[in-house]
Amino acid sequence: MQRIALGLAYDGSGWRGWQTQPGGTGVQDALEAALQQFLGHECPTICAGRTDTGVHALSQVVHLETPKHRELQSWVRGLNALLPDSVAVQWAQPVSADFHARYGARSRTYLYVVRQAAVRSPLLRERTGWVFQPLNLEAMQQAVLALPGQHDFSSFRSSQCQAASPVRTMTAASVTQQGVFYVFRFTANAFLHHMVRNLVGALLYIGMGRQAAQWMAELLLQRDRRLAAPTFSPSGLYLAGVDYDPVHGLPTGNIEATWAQHLPWFS
Amino acid sequence: MQRIALGLAYDGSGWRGWQTQPGGTGVQDALEAALQQFLGHECPTICAGRTDTGVHALSQVVHLETPKHRELQSWVRGLNALLPDSVAVQWAQPVSADFHARYGARSRTYLYVVRQAAVRSPLLRERTGWVFQPLNLEAMQQAVLALPGQHDFSSFRSSQCQAASPVRTMTAASVTQQGVFYVFRFTANAFLHHMVRNLVGALLYIGMGRQAAQWMAELLLQRDRRLAAPTFSPSGLYLAGVDYDPVHGLPTGNIEATWAQHLPWFS
Repeated sequence: MQRIALGLAYDGSGWRGWQTQPGGTGVQDALEAALQQFLGHECPTICAGRTDTGVHALSQVVHLETPKHRELQSWVRGLNALLPDSVAVQWAQPVSADFHARYGARSRTYLYVVRQAAVRSPLLRERTGWVFQPLNLEAMQQAVLALPGQHDFSSFRSSQCQAASPVRTMTAASVTQQGVFYVFRFTANAFLHHMVRNLVGALLYIGMGRQAAQWMAELLLQRDRRLAAPTFSPSGLYLAGVDYDPVHGLPTGNIEATWAQHLPWFS
Repeated sequence: MQRIALGLAYDGSGWRGWQTQPGGTGVQDALEAALQQFLGHECPTICAGRTDTGVHALSQVVHLETPKHRELQSWVRGLNALLPDSVAVQWAQPVSADFHARYGARSRTYLYVVRQAAVRSPLLRERTGWVFQPLNLEAMQQAVLALPGQHDFSSFRSSQCQAASPVRTMTAASVTQQGVFYVFRFTANAFLHHMVRNLVGALLYIGMGRQAAQWMAELLLQRDRRLAAPTFSPSGLYLAGVDYDPVHGLPTGNIEATWAQHLPWFS
């Protein structure tokens, strides 16, 4: 048996998230159908981050096992010929039997892009969130400082979250502005269900002046989802990178280079 | 009667072009259905540039006439509430009776974005053309110098083109590179059917080294569509701006500002 890691990009807007769905409407269904055709056997996959309905990936990492030999280039070209247009393998890499896409991930990076404009953009409707209210960048930048560190993120956790613990360690959190776009970036060991969309919802309330910057720290202490802002739209959310021990030699190190391939405005 | 000009952005990927279609699958059908609801009467429209199936607009200009009075802000908000997600009015402006969106347009600017990468991007599949071959920027920049001026563009004209004359005056043509993206920009008094996609097809042949840079000038002189390259994909094509006499006071002057709203990587 050979274990293979794949890097995947997808447009989440037509999918009911990563995970297998009864009607085959999960990205995982599309990938496993392509793998079965490509390898000639059923091929379950394990991913680094189970993205929700409508959420995109620039660099989802998946592993699988097969007794079949395929050239590395063939993994990419062959699978992409079988996958729908909205999903594409970006790279393939053989890995040792102790590599695990989910349990081996040291951190995940998500980014969220918000477009601030009076009128909606048809061309970016499934690529960015949208607010028409002006935003105070400095207030959001001050608020985001409360996030790095180990915290109980219960205030930002969906009621459907199945994680055993609400405690996560965030290693980086930032907000930057590029023209009419606000880019929120979060790196943590792992994320709770809807956590990024709930964090962005609260930060936007602060950006709009509906709450003060210190509200973010207060919400963390209160550990009560009912006190925070509504879950923001999935449209602007991207699984942007997953970090593994360099011993596995995966090409996941340069998140900015990945963005520049698919979201050129970050390059 | 009041004449109104509207600026429209749309994602062309789900539409059979601008023009009214029997099944209602033209962008014009969507706009005229929204106008009828908004105004309470049938409301034919005239546009500046009849984009093809799959072609996008950042700034299509349309005019119409109505006896009904509506506030300017209501034209934008009211119509956008009635239009599908893939179409949105960006601005509205009352104009004098001698304004004509088509015959009054002094020039149109189209841009074409090509992504050069070994592997396709699901996130940009309906926003950029794609080539996996490396491209020679300097050769394309040299070739594009043949285009400005008044020429017979028969070599770049679809066999279905209904224009009376193949002669057009191009006032600007350029190719630039931004990371893995190549941006082709053309301004002319008017364009023939498939003209931009045929120009880009030929320029890419030159960029790939399949033809020399002087091939562009030769094709213009030969005036024979059969000698040029195949029509390139509509995915990366945008009607980016339309220029009118400033006396009409339309907010169409700053093409870069329009791009920055919808294609932020140009800003």
